[in-house]
Parts: sequence; structure tokens; C-alpha cells
Amino acid sequence: MLRFGLFGAGRIGRVHAASLAAHPRTELAMVHDPIEPAAHEVAALYGATPTGDADAILGDPGIDAVVIASPTPTHVALLTACARAGKAVLCEKPIDLDLARVDACWVEIKGLNATVMIGFNRRFDPTFAEIRERVAGGEIGRLEQLLITSRDPAPAPAAYIASSGGLFEPYIAEAGDVDSAVVSMRGAGGELCQITNSRRCAFGYDQRLEAFGAEGMLTAGNQTATSVRRSGASGTETAPPYLNFFLDRYTLAYRAELDHLVICMEQGLTPNPGFADGRAALVLADAATESMKTGRAVRTDS
Amino acid sequence: MLRFGLFGAGRIGRVHAASLAAHPRTELAMVHDPIEPAAHEVAALYGATPTGDADAILGDPGIDAVVIASPTPTHVALLTACARAGKAVLCEKPIDLDLARVDACWVEIKGLNATVMIGFNRRFDPTFAEIRERVAGGEIGRLEQLLITSRDPAPAPAAYIASSGGLFEPYIAEAGDVDSAVVSMRGAGGELCQITNSRRCAFGYDQRLEAFGAEGMLTAGNQTATSVRRSGASGTETAPPYLNFFLDRYTLAYRAELDHLVICMEQGLTPNPGFADGRAALVLADAATESMKTGRAVRTDS
Amino acid sequence: MLRFGLFGAGRIGRVHAASLAAHPRTELAMVHDPIEPAAHEVAALYGATPTGDADAILGDPGIDAVVIASPTPTHVALLTACARAGKAVLCEKPIDLDLARVDACWVEIKGLNATVMIGFNRRFDPTFAEIRERVAGGEIGRLEQLLITSRDPAPAPAAYIASSGGLFEPYIAEAGDVDSAVVSMRGAGGELCQITNSRRCAFGYDQRLEAFGAEGMLTAGNQTATSVRRSGASGTETAPPYLNFFLDRYTLAYRAELDHLVICMEQGLTPNPGFADGRAALVLADAATESMKTGRAVRTDS
Amino acid sequence: MLRFGLFGAGRIGRVHAASLAAHPRTELAMVHDPIEPAAHEVAALYGATPTGDADAILGDPGIDAVVIASPTPTHVALLTACARAGKAVLCEKPIDLDLARVDACWVEIKGLNATVMIGFNRRFDPTFAEIRERVAGGEIGRLEQLLITSRDPAPAPAAYIASSGGLFEPYIAEAGDVDSAVVSMRGAGGELCQITNSRRCAFGYDQRLEAFGAEGMLTAGNQTATSVRRSGASGTETAPPYLNFFLDRYTLAYRAELDHLVICMEQGLTPNPGFADGRAALVLADAATESMKTGRAVRTDS
Repeated sequence: MLRFGLFGAGRIGRVHAASLAAHPRTELAMVHDPIEPAAHEVAALYGATPTGDADAILGDPGIDAVVIASPTPTHVALLTACARAGKAVLCEKPIDLDLARVDACWVEIKGLNATVMIGFNRRFDPTFAEIRERVAGGEIGRLEQLLITSRDPAPAPAAYIASSGGLFEPYIAEAGDVDSAVVSMRGAGGELCQITNSRRCAFGYDQRLEAFGAEGMLTAGNQTATSVRRSGASGTETAPPYLNFFLDRYTLAYRAELDHLVICMEQGLTPNPGFADGRAALVLADAATESMKTGRAVRTDS
Repeated sequence: MLRFGLFGAGRIGRVHAASLAAHPRTELAMVHDPIEPAAHEVAALYGATPTGDADAILGDPGIDAVVIASPTPTHVALLTACARAGKAVLCEKPIDLDLARVDACWVEIKGLNATVMIGFNRRFDPTFAEIRERVAGGEIGRLEQLLITSRDPAPAPAAYIASSGGLFEPYIAEAGDVDSAVVSMRGAGGELCQITNSRRCAFGYDQRLEAFGAEGMLTAGNQTATSVRRSGASGTETAPPYLNFFLDRYTLAYRAELDHLVICMEQGLTPNPGFADGRAALVLADAATESMKTGRAVRTDS
Repeated sequence: MLRFGLFGAGRIGRVHAASLAAHPRTELAMVHDPIEPAAHEVAALYGATPTGDADAILGDPGIDAVVIASPTPTHVALLTACARAGKAVLCEKPIDLDLARVDACWVEIKGLNATVMIGFNRRFDPTFAEIRERVAGGEIGRLEQLLITSRDPAPAPAAYIASSGGLFEPYIAEAGDVDSAVVSMRGAGGELCQITNSRRCAFGYDQRLEAFGAEGMLTAGNQTATSVRRSGASGTETAPPYLNFFLDRYTLAYRAELDHLVICMEQGLTPNPGFADGRAALVLADAATESMKTGRAVRTDS
Repeated sequence: MLRFGLFGAGRIGRVHAASLAAHPRTELAMVHDPIEPAAHEVAALYGATPTGDADAILGDPGIDAVVIASPTPTHVALLTACARAGKAVLCEKPIDLDLARVDACWVEIKGLNATVMIGFNRRFDPTFAEIRERVAGGEIGRLEQLLITSRDPAPAPAAYIASSGGLFEPYIAEAGDVDSAVVSMRGAGGELCQITNSRRCAFGYDQRLEAFGAEGMLTAGNQTATSVRRSGASGTETAPPYLNFFLDRYTLAYRAELDHLVICMEQGLTPNPGFADGRAALVLADAATESMKTGRAVRTDS
């Protein structure tokens, strides 16, 4: 049984706490949050110990690993401290909003041989993972176009946006009010990728993907809580809004993500996505921000 | 150019008039209806001659063929007269509500070698015809279950129901109020067939089919006028109601039906479905009525 | 924590064992199976005690409740013994294949005030339960037609069929080879219900429902493991076969079923569906069998 | 009855010939093509007069209007000559590949008060037109994102590409090999629009649209010739490939387009889209080409 500490008892921290409790080979041992009532509340749900002192986790030799689900500005310090303390780390994205700090962090930890995983949860979603695998298996021939739709059901609370890094995580928050965005990219192999984002969506959490290749197309449609469809005088074959399903959309993905870390710890493997993937996402976000500001296409080498 | 006479300038008569006008090798020459303004109105649309006298059509040697779209009680007399007059006939279903009269009609006309087609329009619907062809081609293996859904968008006018023959055409109208029905049949090969009917449907004209076989299934879903789908706060992926599409659902089927008759006339072939098919439908309707009244399964030999 | 004993370590027993292990307020304490290696295997998965002696469960005062997932012929005896021993019971359907035995069982247990639930898992399926609730809430007006499709992905093993009671559970197994069936029923309110069954289905586990009412329709379509759809030269918008999803289709339903029993036990409520529901299903199955044999509609009063 | 001349007896010319023959108030009088057998073939289909001499149409006072469906390089000269000859004109897009020539053409004809319509057929597609109308009617609130997918089923013949103007009609053909493209635009109101193109598509003619607004979304999916869907061991709910439907996808649009011109001629109205719309499309195509070459966003003022 691997014993975990959790940093952050907010919305995403609770998702991780539930995953840790549900996994047959992990145990949520301690929950840290500077807002102690939050730490107490989450700890109580799963029989863990709450704390307001990060060192209580860092210094406990019985803690094997940590999940960092605290606000973004705390990620680098916690990740560095955990790596030094010999804990395996699952750190929520982004690592930081500043590439220089990310690189400095890497200098600190690269010699420690630490197990570090960055929480790109969508990669563990069964639907998206299946598409990736089938594309890699050649089912649609050469990948030529990739279209991603990601629209949030409603704007996140203002406090969250302030430290989230904006749509082009992590840099453009300071640019102000980007609530609708299209990002166009061209991959090393010439494939075109476009991402359509919106901070709100009247019909729920709109999460789709379309992979178009020389020999066919694979798509991921939205998912609904049940397969009920309604037909009536005002319309037919109506699916429910995706809104109520929002909290559950990525539950399985978070569980698969944790399971991957557990297997890596048990078998001495390197988690994927790792630190370099977290850095690469930041490079792309910086490029998108620069492109938006300058009106020019930007080349990245990562 | 084949010249046609039309009996009946009501709703279904107008559908046939439009098909006759649109076909490149037919011409609507005369329109008969005892309600002369109706005959005038339809004739005027297509440059035909209106008449209130059926003999004007029967006696005109320039008329090659007729479409009988008048009320059911007139079908047998008109069909017999037209066959005697050497006209090819496309007669709307049912031939009559009384099997004895149908058989008597056959005695009258069988020696005349007349070209007689009965208007089972659904057999010419591209979707249903495709399923029939693919099933016959072995695509789903042995056919085991066939489910048909046929729900009308709204009750037909009372006058229409009075002479229509009811849901189990043509006999049960006198039984009164059958507005929702399920018919279960077993075919000679053991295949199960069930038909679900309703005289009204809140969301339009519900016309579906499901053919289930040992190796797969072919289904025919409803069709909508456009492919527009709406997502909003009250539901997602909503198709339009089928109601507005009602008038057009079988337009192509009626045109293909006419085209079949034209080809048979041009090439000296026997139309299919013919008189025997019209009789067989009546036998099944009688059996359904008897089964409903007696609560027993009924065997037919046709 | 409620402690459960499980009778039967076969396919369905394992489903219940997993539900018991996953529920936060239940514990799988003992597993009985006359085939002791099966009992050992399932018990080992969840840290329970295996046994080949049913009395080890019946006589253990620390066991609060049992799940009866053993072969049908053992249900009545186990259900009676458990009720006498003061255990709450969740018994798989059918109670028995013989209505007289079922009624005799009721005579034995009705005075014991036992908590007895019969395992009609589909009633706890989120999709079917939602339709039932929305219909009851008046969303589609008066219910007029109910169509149920239930096709198994592949024939069950011969040994299972021999004691399962056949498609019209529980009586018609002796009739032999009913592998494709349509059942038509009319409810007390005049609503028509038809059930379409097949023992095999080339494209997986086909579980659908259509509730048609005066003001609209609610349908439950099939569900797929992911929302991936494929388009290629041989076809477009292809969903995966339902086969691989078969094991998971009713996982949530079994969990909700158990949760209902737990809540009833904790709060002193009577479970629903109870013994009378199990009896009613048998009455309907007998009627279907009689109808098939006699070719007549059969009236039931239950 | 309006009498039309047709320039061009190729693929698109034949589509217009069929529309002219089917419209109740137009007549195809003459067909011009420098390849005289082509002119003869199309003329023979509809009882028109073939010619290899454009002046035969221009100089015939009995011709009310023309459709210009000849190769792009001939459009400006024909359009100018027809306007001078007092014919109403429906000219296929693009007007020309060179904005200067387009503007010179306008100088020639603007004083003639000619009836000029440019053939943007998609605007008359019932599905796309319905979305435009419903968006304009406020159904989805403020339009925020518009996504257009347009993938051809297979590369057009090389000769066609050479004079077609490329994906960014009309300029980039000389850039060579653009067979996959994404265009991102921002409208005057801040709305984001992206177009995804491909010169080939393994599963047919992929024509979709997604209009996302503050209060909902309207989408146009692909259309299939029939509503048949297949389920089998290798997949479920499979629609046919869109390929065979390609020739018919815009048939109704071309007919509605012609009908619009007819109504404008009959009622003395100005057709929409007109010459200015044809020019605007060229301005956008030039901007896309420039953006691709420079890697910079380009502002247009049209």
C-alpha cells in the first residue's frame, strides 16, 4: 500500500483524494491546505490526517508520494521540496507560469532521480487514449488534421482565473479577457492542428476531438450521463445537456492517471507525461501568446 | 410520352399529379373528380383537362393509363372499367375492404391481360428498398426479426378514416377506436415480424424499420428536412420535429413507383406489386382483425 | 458496516462480490459454493472466508445479510433458511421455476417479517430508471406504447440455459429451442408493451427501450465503452460493437441495487422490488408460455 | 418563360442545365462550348440549340439570361459581354483570379444596370441557409465561433486544379501543393471563424458547419442518401460513406440559386450574392494567400 500526501484541498484536490481512496493499492495519509478547515474536511472524508504545515508531509518518512493540487504559484517550490525529500510526485499542470522558473526547477531536481509526473489528465481519458492508440496503429493512415474542441460549461470563479494562467496556459492571463480562442499549429510532420476554446458553453462541458487522416477519421463526441433521448413537439432525439455530467467527465481519466503513477512506482519506471512534457506545454502556450500579441506565426523547437 | 388520366383530386391524387408532371415520359392529360372544382384546380396546375364524367377518361383512346386515387369504395368499379377499356392501371391501396369483392374483381379482369399495379408506395422508398435489397443479398445472414414502426403525425380527418379501412386495412374501421396497435406475425421461415402503429405522434411522422439477422442488423431511422442540430441549455443535439417533413417523406417513393409502371408499360413487363399483392395485404388485415376480436393467433395461407 | 454472506461464486456471484467490496458500508464476510475452489477464488479476491457449508453462513450471528446468486433450483430453500435465520436477503431472479413452490415459500416466510429483495437489476440501471421517472412525471403524457429490446451477445453456456428457465423465465426451458421471441402485452390502462428477445446478437449486447406517449417519446439507446466513432471508405460514423462493453453494461445497476438494500436495512424500510414482484414476473412468464403453446391471448390478474 | 443561354458544357454546366430544365419558368435555349460535341450532348438532353459561337447567344434577342459555367479565365470577358448585351447573368465563382481584372470588369459594367449574380451555391443549401437564418434570428445569442469543414471526396482532375485558383481561390495555385489547409479569421464583431479544407477525404464529401453562440450551438452534419444504418461484428450504427451522395449534395442548392435569380428577374430585384460578394471572396482569398506566405495575420477592409 503506497501512502500519499495531498497538497491542496480545493476542487481538484478533492478529485485526487477520491481517486487515492478508490485505488486498491494507495492510501491517502495526509492532507495539507493553508486553509485548515478545508484540509480537515477532505481528510475526514477518507480517514486521513489534516495539516496546515507542509513539512509535516515532507518530513514524514512513511509518506511515499505526493499529489500537488495547490495553486499554481506554489507548484515549483513544493515539487522541488518533494523531490529532495525523496517523494514521488504527481504535480498538477502547469508547473509554473514562467519558463525561466520551470528551467531553474529542473536544474534543482534533475540530479535527484526523482519520480515526477505532470497531471495531463486528458491523456488518460479512455476515449482520447483510444483515438491516440488507433491513430498510432495506422488505422486512418497518415494523420493530416487534428481538431480539438474544449469549451468550459461556465466561467470559473474569478479567483481561479487570476492564478490559472489563462486559456494559453500559463502566460496570457495578464493580457486580460481571452474567453474565446482558436489556436492553429503545424506539427513537425506537416499535420495541422487546431484547438477551439471557450470559457463558457450554454449546453455544458463540450469536449470533442477529430483526427482526420489519409484513410479515414476518428472522432470523440461528447458523453452524456445516460443514453436517454427525448422526442417531442419542439424537437427530436434530444440528448441531455452536458452540464450535469461535467463533474464526472474525467473521473476515469484521473483514476487512470493515478494508476499509471502507482505502476511506475511499483516497477521502477519513469512516468509519462513527465517534467519535460510540462515544460513543452509551457513553450507552446508562450508561443500562442506571442503569436496573439504580434499577429505572427511562431516557430518552436521543443 | 404516355398520357395518363387521374381519378381523384384529393390529397393523394395531387401527389400523383405532381409525379406525372415531373416524369420525363408521362403527361397528365385528364383529371376526374365528382367535386368538379377540385378536378379543375388540379388540372389547371399541370395543363390537363378536368372532368366530372369518368367515361371521358375511359372512352378516350388517347389515354394510355390511369391512376386511381379516388375513395376506396370506388376502386373496384374503376379498376374493372379501366382494365376493360385497355388502360394500364395504378390503383391506390386498398383494392377494397371486402375480400369477396376483391376476388370477384379478379374474376372479371384476369382474362383481360391488363397491366395492373397496386400502389404500395413504401416498397419504392429508397431507404426501405435498400434494406430489402441488402437483406436479400445476405448482408445480415438469415432474417430473424423485423420491426416496423409507423406512426402518423396526427389523426387524419374523420371523413378519411370512415372509408380508409382502419389501421388493419381494410376491415376494422367498424370496430371503432383502434388508434394504437401492435401486430405480431411469424413468417413461413420462422422469422418474427412486428408492426407498431399509432394514429398520432407528437413529434411528426415516425417511420422506422429494423431488420435483425443472424449476422447483423440494418435499420432505417427517421429523416429530417435538413441536417441541422441544436444544442442549448435545455438539451443537446436536437433534430427538428419530423412534422414539417411529412408531406415530403415519400415523394421520392411515389416517383419511383410511377417510374416502375412506366418502364413496365414501355417494355411489356408485369408490374410488381400487382393485384395479388393487394389481395394478400387484405388477407393479412382480415387475419389481424380476426385475431384482435378472438384473442387467438390466426394462420393465413396466402 | 453490514457484513454479507454470498451464496454462489459463479459469474453473477462475482458481480455481487465486487459490488459488496466497493460499497463503503458493506463487507463481504463469507463466500459459499459447493465447488470449493470457486468459493476460495472469490473469497481471496476480497479477503473473505470461503466455505462449502451453507450453515456456516446461516449460523453465523455476525452475518447481517446474504446475496443468493446460486443456481435457480436452490433459491427457495436458501431464501427460506436465510429468512428464518434473520438475515436480510437479496435473491437473484427467478425465485423458482414453479409458481406453486414460490407460493409455498411465501407461506413459510411471510410471518417472519424478513427483509427480502429480488434482484431485478435493470430497474436500477440509471438510463432505464431515468425513463421510468420521467414517464411517471408526465413528460410524455399518457404512456401508450412501450417497446423493449433485449438481445444477448451470444448464447449462454448450455449448462446455464438448462436451469435458467428460458427466455420466458422461468417455465419454458422444457419447450426446447426458443432463441428468438416477441412478447406482446396490454397493461391495465390499455398501454401496449412488446418485448423483443434474442439469445444472440452479432453486434453485442443490445439493450434498448422506447416509451411512446401522447406527448412525446423517451428512448434508451445502446451504450458504448468510449465515444469514439470511425469514418472510412466502407462506412461512416461507426460506433464500436457493444460486445466488449457487455461485462460493464449493468455494473452501475448492480451497485445501485445493493445500495438500495443497504439503505432499507439501515432505515428499516421494505425493499422494492420485493417477493411479490418476483412472483408477478413468474405469473407473466407462465402466461407467455401458455400463450405460445395455445396460440391465444392470456389474461393475468396479478 | 425565361429563356437561358448556357456557357460551358462541363461538369458544373450540366448541373445548371438540369436546374434550368427542371424550373417551371425557365427554358434552356442554347448551349455554348468550344468543344462542340460537349455542347451538342448537353443541348440534346434538353431540346436546346448547341453552338460553338458565343455571339450566337450574345446576339440573340430572344435570350433573356445566361449562366456562365465556362473555365475561370473566360468569366470576365463573358460577363462583360453579356451585361452589355442586356442579358441577366449568373456567373460561377470565382469572377477571376486577379483582383485588378475584377475591378476593371466592374468599371466596365457598373453603369449598365445589369442583373449580375455570382454562384455561391452553398448559400442556397437548405441546411446552411437554415442555420444562417436561425443565427440571425437570435436563437443562439451572439455568434462567437464559426467552424466550417469542407473536404472533397477525391482530388479533382489536374486540368481542373490548374485553372481553379487553388484552395484559397483564386490565387495560390501557383504556390503548388496546398491540399490540406486551415484558415482562421476574426470578424468585425470579434467572432472567430475557422475553415478546414482538404482536397481529398476517404469517406466522401465532408461538408459540415458549427455555429457556436453565447446561448447555444447549431450544427450541420453530413447527409446520406438513405437513412440506413448497419450494425455488425465489426461495428455498429454505420452510415454509408458520403461518396456516392457527392453528386447530389448540392442539387437543391443549385435549384434554389436559380430560383432566386428568376424571382429577381421577374420582380426587378437585385440578386444576392452579387458582384461585390464575388469581389469580397477574392479579397479574402488574397489575404489567406498572403498570410500563408508571410506567416502574418492580414487585415482586410472589405
